[in-house]
Amino acid sequence: MTLWGGVFDLPPDESLRRLNDSFSFDRRMYAQDIDGSIAYARALARAGVLTVEEADVLIDGLRRVLAEFESGAFVDQPGDEDIHTAVERRLTELVGEVGGKLHTGRSRNDQVVTDFRLWTMDALRRVDALGKALQSALVASAEGHIDTLMPGYTHFQPAQPITVAHWLMSYFWMLARDRERLHDAWRRTAVSPLGSGALAGHPFGIDRELLADEMGFLSCSQNSLDAVADRDFAAEAGFGLALMAAHLSRFGEDMVIFTNPALGFFTLDDRYSTGSSIMPQKRNADPMELTRGKAARLLGRLTGLLSMIKGTPTGYNKDYQEDKEAVFEMFDTLELLLPVVSAVVSTMTVNTAKLRAALGEELLATDLAEYLVRKGLPFRQAHHVVGRAVREAQAEGVVLSALPLEGLRALSPHFDEDVRDVFSFERSVAMRSTTGGTAPEAVRRQIAAAKALLANR
Amino acid sequence: MTLWGGVFDLPPDESLRRLNDSFSFDRRMYAQDIDGSIAYARALARAGVLTVEEADVLIDGLRRVLAEFESGAFVDQPGDEDIHTAVERRLTELVGEVGGKLHTGRSRNDQVVTDFRLWTMDALRRVDALGKALQSALVASAEGHIDTLMPGYTHFQPAQPITVAHWLMSYFWMLARDRERLHDAWRRTAVSPLGSGALAGHPFGIDRELLADEMGFLSCSQNSLDAVADRDFAAEAGFGLALMAAHLSRFGEDMVIFTNPALGFFTLDDRYSTGSSIMPQKRNADPMELTRGKAARLLGRLTGLLSMIKGTPTGYNKDYQEDKEAVFEMFDTLELLLPVVSAVVSTMTVNTAKLRAALGEELLATDLAEYLVRKGLPFRQAHHVVGRAVREAQAEGVVLSALPLEGLRALSPHFDEDVRDVFSFERSVAMRSTTGGTAPEAVRRQIAAAKALLANR
Amino acid sequence: MTLWGGVFDLPPDESLRRLNDSFSFDRRMYAQDIDGSIAYARALARAGVLTVEEADVLIDGLRRVLAEFESGAFVDQPGDEDIHTAVERRLTELVGEVGGKLHTGRSRNDQVVTDFRLWTMDALRRVDALGKALQSALVASAEGHIDTLMPGYTHFQPAQPITVAHWLMSYFWMLARDRERLHDAWRRTAVSPLGSGALAGHPFGIDRELLADEMGFLSCSQNSLDAVADRDFAAEAGFGLALMAAHLSRFGEDMVIFTNPALGFFTLDDRYSTGSSIMPQKRNADPMELTRGKAARLLGRLTGLLSMIKGTPTGYNKDYQEDKEAVFEMFDTLELLLPVVSAVVSTMTVNTAKLRAALGEELLATDLAEYLVRKGLPFRQAHHVVGRAVREAQAEGVVLSALPLEGLRALSPHFDEDVRDVFSFERSVAMRSTTGGTAPEAVRRQIAAAKALLANR
Amino acid sequence: MTLWGGVFDLPPDESLRRLNDSFSFDRRMYAQDIDGSIAYARALARAGVLTVEEADVLIDGLRRVLAEFESGAFVDQPGDEDIHTAVERRLTELVGEVGGKLHTGRSRNDQVVTDFRLWTMDALRRVDALGKALQSALVASAEGHIDTLMPGYTHFQPAQPITVAHWLMSYFWMLARDRERLHDAWRRTAVSPLGSGALAGHPFGIDRELLADEMGFLSCSQNSLDAVADRDFAAEAGFGLALMAAHLSRFGEDMVIFTNPALGFFTLDDRYSTGSSIMPQKRNADPMELTRGKAARLLGRLTGLLSMIKGTPTGYNKDYQEDKEAVFEMFDTLELLLPVVSAVVSTMTVNTAKLRAALGEELLATDLAEYLVRKGLPFRQAHHVVGRAVREAQAEGVVLSALPLEGLRALSPHFDEDVRDVFSFERSVAMRSTTGGTAPEAVRRQIAAAKALLANR
Repeated sequence: MTLWGGVFDLPPDESLRRLNDSFSFDRRMYAQDIDGSIAYARALARAGVLTVEEADVLIDGLRRVLAEFESGAFVDQPGDEDIHTAVERRLTELVGEVGGKLHTGRSRNDQVVTDFRLWTMDALRRVDALGKALQSALVASAEGHIDTLMPGYTHFQPAQPITVAHWLMSYFWMLARDRERLHDAWRRTAVSPLGSGALAGHPFGIDRELLADEMGFLSCSQNSLDAVADRDFAAEAGFGLALMAAHLSRFGEDMVIFTNPALGFFTLDDRYSTGSSIMPQKRNADPMELTRGKAARLLGRLTGLLSMIKGTPTGYNKDYQEDKEAVFEMFDTLELLLPVVSAVVSTMTVNTAKLRAALGEELLATDLAEYLVRKGLPFRQAHHVVGRAVREAQAEGVVLSALPLEGLRALSPHFDEDVRDVFSFERSVAMRSTTGGTAPEAVRRQIAAAKALLANR
Repeated sequence: MTLWGGVFDLPPDESLRRLNDSFSFDRRMYAQDIDGSIAYARALARAGVLTVEEADVLIDGLRRVLAEFESGAFVDQPGDEDIHTAVERRLTELVGEVGGKLHTGRSRNDQVVTDFRLWTMDALRRVDALGKALQSALVASAEGHIDTLMPGYTHFQPAQPITVAHWLMSYFWMLARDRERLHDAWRRTAVSPLGSGALAGHPFGIDRELLADEMGFLSCSQNSLDAVADRDFAAEAGFGLALMAAHLSRFGEDMVIFTNPALGFFTLDDRYSTGSSIMPQKRNADPMELTRGKAARLLGRLTGLLSMIKGTPTGYNKDYQEDKEAVFEMFDTLELLLPVVSAVVSTMTVNTAKLRAALGEELLATDLAEYLVRKGLPFRQAHHVVGRAVREAQAEGVVLSALPLEGLRALSPHFDEDVRDVFSFERSVAMRSTTGGTAPEAVRRQIAAAKALLANR
Repeated sequence: MTLWGGVFDLPPDESLRRLNDSFSFDRRMYAQDIDGSIAYARALARAGVLTVEEADVLIDGLRRVLAEFESGAFVDQPGDEDIHTAVERRLTELVGEVGGKLHTGRSRNDQVVTDFRLWTMDALRRVDALGKALQSALVASAEGHIDTLMPGYTHFQPAQPITVAHWLMSYFWMLARDRERLHDAWRRTAVSPLGSGALAGHPFGIDRELLADEMGFLSCSQNSLDAVADRDFAAEAGFGLALMAAHLSRFGEDMVIFTNPALGFFTLDDRYSTGSSIMPQKRNADPMELTRGKAARLLGRLTGLLSMIKGTPTGYNKDYQEDKEAVFEMFDTLELLLPVVSAVVSTMTVNTAKLRAALGEELLATDLAEYLVRKGLPFRQAHHVVGRAVREAQAEGVVLSALPLEGLRALSPHFDEDVRDVFSFERSVAMRSTTGGTAPEAVRRQIAAAKALLANR
Repeated sequence: MTLWGGVFDLPPDESLRRLNDSFSFDRRMYAQDIDGSIAYARALARAGVLTVEEADVLIDGLRRVLAEFESGAFVDQPGDEDIHTAVERRLTELVGEVGGKLHTGRSRNDQVVTDFRLWTMDALRRVDALGKALQSALVASAEGHIDTLMPGYTHFQPAQPITVAHWLMSYFWMLARDRERLHDAWRRTAVSPLGSGALAGHPFGIDRELLADEMGFLSCSQNSLDAVADRDFAAEAGFGLALMAAHLSRFGEDMVIFTNPALGFFTLDDRYSTGSSIMPQKRNADPMELTRGKAARLLGRLTGLLSMIKGTPTGYNKDYQEDKEAVFEMFDTLELLLPVVSAVVSTMTVNTAKLRAALGEELLATDLAEYLVRKGLPFRQAHHVVGRAVREAQAEGVVLSALPLEGLRALSPHFDEDVRDVFSFERSVAMRSTTGGTAPEAVRRQIAAAKALLANR
């Protein structure tokens, strides 16, 4: 059974069936499809298209179909080309001819995108919770390392000392933006297209606002032609997920390098590392590499979605059937990744001694320049003076603090005995205490702000 | 002059200079760079790093540099590797050694992204205004065609009659979402990174919140390491622009087909058409095709941005220099496209007669099924009955309304004399009067809602 | 059982297992994996690492494992993290401890990419055959329409008359390039990495060239570090498939528009059309729209692959595990699409009368200009004169041939009685008889060349 | 002056002009445009469309236009919408009315793609030469480091010792494939579309094969409709460049990490490093980071090209105008990058001692397992035994070789005195002497093969 076919002499060829049918992947929207149909039956009854009794029969039948899906008792039939057809087919088997009244004024065009929006709204909530869990893991780990020093990098070259908490928290804020973006995407997803018909609107005077509200939408769409073809919500959610994955990929990149024994800053827990089939000593950060790789996958899926949307004319086009597998895969991927990344954060060992040992005095060169600034030298000159001091130390094969005061004075008379105070990583870090700085004091405020954010959302 | 170099024996090779230098494209941010520096000088003075007199000298000098850029009097020097270096170099020429104090506590890492955010905020506002202008053009054109009928399509096959206003308004709502998304992007762009230093924060206790406020930001960033490396705002704006371009591309696709003489629905104004170098009769919808093509360009740029972000570890990385040309081009493209699309809408001729002539009675098949539904037949059966009626009409080579009543009755006893009323395109359209429907009455409400939206934003 | 683990205290967490394991998708490479292992056992025996008896035992065991996969008798075990582990695990169950000798000198790094290359080589051959079948369908259809006229388009505006055969054959040549590109990709895929070990090469002196030859490769890789990390073949095949899909998408776009009743050039066979759940009259070109949509999917997958490759450092990285699902899906998609597109071509009805009726005399404007050129007028002036004639005809609401000769002479004295001959679509087409032209004579040569190509490859 | 316009009342609006005109970027194809026109004038003369005298006048005039472009004397005029219009306009100014004969039978549709193919063929040759230069730099550097040991990585974790030459040569082979692919792209670019007219072919019987040959093409296109719309060559070249850039990005990623002082394997020459505006000690590998970033840019451009192609129906479409800026930028980027990467390779310091110091005995674990294999233990068991030995050594805080023989024997009786020989990095490397292995002996053969390749192409 297809929902169409009256005008055709021949049924679709098997090869077209395989190309066209979507039941294999859209069946996972069965709950949304049935919930939407229940609400729709009520709306039809309110509009007088169905009697209350008919609506009740339909609703009861739909609940039985839902139960069959949930228990695994639902049996596919060859004609079930998509979830909508499958549900209506089964419903009609269960309740008889009245089942054929459910689709009154409705098209698969508005029905499918209603289902898909409802599914996406649910999925956005799930990913939001997983994102929040990762944020919590980062905060918890950061709180234990507010005073743990590590080299901070720019251009992946040692730049200035920072704290491990500061590094961890940098990922907290990326996720905060991600969640905010996904929340905005949720808001724009929560617009009901139901009642748009195939393209032109609904001819039986249903109350679309109330229908939308019953399904859990915030509002309903304002133009039926737009509504059946609008896949912006899928693209926007997809973008939010792709960018979130890019952030996780950056974390993965850090971890792959930081767990290399040459740095050895962190050790992944056994449960989140893997070995080699040939090299017995290996400890690989597989989940971190897969995070990088899967971020590329999401980027590709987003590209595919946008290219698909770009290539369509007015109204509903079958091209849009490509939307679901892409979006499903994007959500599935993040639902797989996020818990692993959270677990990596929560279980990894922070090798404090190795982190400390990686601090070289050249990381204090900026502090040395700032010392001169405090003595009155313009920063640009101070920068130059310290550049020469660094070279001198390199030439003599000594650390900066080993340069004799006279030597420094030869470079600038502003150097004095108190320059020795500069050679402290703790001091360097403590100095950067403005909002967002790496000073323990500032990081404590940062963590407090983060916790406040988590408490609200 | 570079802002660095103290530690190097040899200057960069000319080939590296050409690869590395960004002044050729980042000079367009001169106003943002100088505005940011003026605010920063004030912040340094407030923090006691500069005297008020020093700050005044710097601010006065910066204003002179700005004037030089605006008048075209600014003369590039070989060492001007980016806008920041160029401005500081010129400032120091104008005000002397004190110019070297401006960069105190600041890094190009926080400076460049401050400039870029300010530039993006401005550009988002410009595109928003252009998007609004296109919305207004659509509304104005729609108001003149609330009763003009045209075939509505799904799968690009004639489906049901709609009105031209309804088709035009479908693009209004896409743009409404686009503008909303870009506004959200603006909000997340309006976060000041200034005072983050190179990565670790600011060591001179400036008031970053006040500084942010003075520059026109809504707030300031909470983690310095994140702030210097955060290019989310660029990606988010880029996504918003790419999706907007995809919408314009869909409009372009419609127009290319609808101006094909076989349909002939619309005629582009001479000023927005082009001819052929070889075929004298041609009228091409070049701007509509370019709209399609440029949407692909934007998609590519977004992909490039995301792939770049994905590929970086913690902290600032030079890869980020790739952000600006991509984002600049995306905005430039839309600033070029949007006015042309608006003009196309405002100046095109609507060929009412051709639109009307394109309506075939088969577009009323759904209405016929709905007629049977109103007589009590379940929709699914009604759909099937009408499918057979359509086939019969096709077989006899007549339109639907030419089928004799007896013939219809043979398909379903529910057919009666009043079936004749169904064969009216006006009636079909008028029936779809729920929210978002194509009925003139509903479209008037839709337009009123659209105007209310434009009045607010 | 994993193939590693000696150095670990704890097994991988279930969440990591789900993220990490690839058996769900790489099991389809079982034949390639086993074939490679059989060849490898022989190579080890030749190198004296195994005795001939041991090799025989292994080969016999491997054949039993293969038989289990093919019959469906193979039973998955929890530790089967990938196809390699699963096969070795089962082999060892069947043949005992000697099974543990098979992996000598081999790593999963060289093994997986050996399998994947072999799989890709097979898949490229399958797609090549399907592409050839579509080419044959196009040629067969073209041969029946060498004299059938249709409007040719540029900018999708009617430009000049062409033949249906010429239009069909334009897709033949796209596919010819696609197949050539995929053949080049095959050549570069057919390079054996086996014997590269994990990264550093093989320590037991096997003959890699002979091993490569036995597996059906053309040659073997020259650098082990490169070989284990080289996914170029996947990207190149992916690019070839994505571009082929883009060509099919262009055909799909044509067909969607050409089957719109306003043009009505072609009618899809019932077996390759679909209807509507609400509009009984609809005949949708679903497979053509899905072709467009799926081209976007392939583009996305290619983007994902390239972004993944770009993001990796030296040597094998786990990111590469993302390669297979992408490439599998790309091939699967084309294997689904190509037969449907071939069937669409072979079964569609060519509506000769509608095609002819769509020819307007303005399509002969270029011929008219060429007439003047033959009379000695420079083309640029002739183009201008005819432009004015077209305008005059439009102003008077007549076709070009209805303009009186005096009127034409007023525009240019070169017009003469024989201008009447120009107003023939057949003549116009027949004139364009150079290589690649649309004249029936030239198209016959074109088809002959196409057949010669098909005969060779 | 435009080349069209006869049929229009009003000229294009300024906003359309800015959107539509391509002269700003296609003027760089002036030499190709004029060369093609010279060959075309000869072809027209051979076909009797022009007299020999007319052709000579045109050719002479075209050479004068060329000279003006080359000397910078060419003066743009407002109507010069593209290079073709500009050249024809100037030609006609120089030679008079006969200039209007050049475009006979030609369209900008075949002309632009002829120019673009010729330009791309030249650019492919330039990039090929730069790629070859980089290969030569890699070989030269490798030759000096055939015996220099370094840790080889998989999963970016230390895996086995390799040689610096082996690592360098891994990039040689990526480039070899890149150049091969670009050569294949060149072959498919070298197909002349000239003589295809706007879409339907040439009506004046020119000899397209001879014309193609004179312009330096290998052959001519076989279907005019395909020829004017075929942008496959652009996409294929773009893919080749994007993949080459991805390889350079991988090298960049290696270098960014390997120059981090924690590893310190290589030091970039001063001329190819940059410093910091705030941190005086910094040495950043900017060109390597930009290489990564620019690879993302190329990926984006490829995506844009493919999405553009995918979105077009039959025949020439204006969307294709987007092809040139994308392709130009891709070539320009590689022409900028490749020399810098070559210089980085040629001038970097290899820190032999640091590389050596980074070798830990755990890199010999695989060798230890192979030792047991040679004693008769199945590899799988050997792997397990060594895994336990590694753990034991870790537990006792000693290196592998410090484990007493009795301890080893307790793990496996196959251990004997000669196990001491295994603990040599040189021996480990020397063992991997099969084709493609890292043994100095094998690398010498590899380099010889590389040189033979360079000698041929």
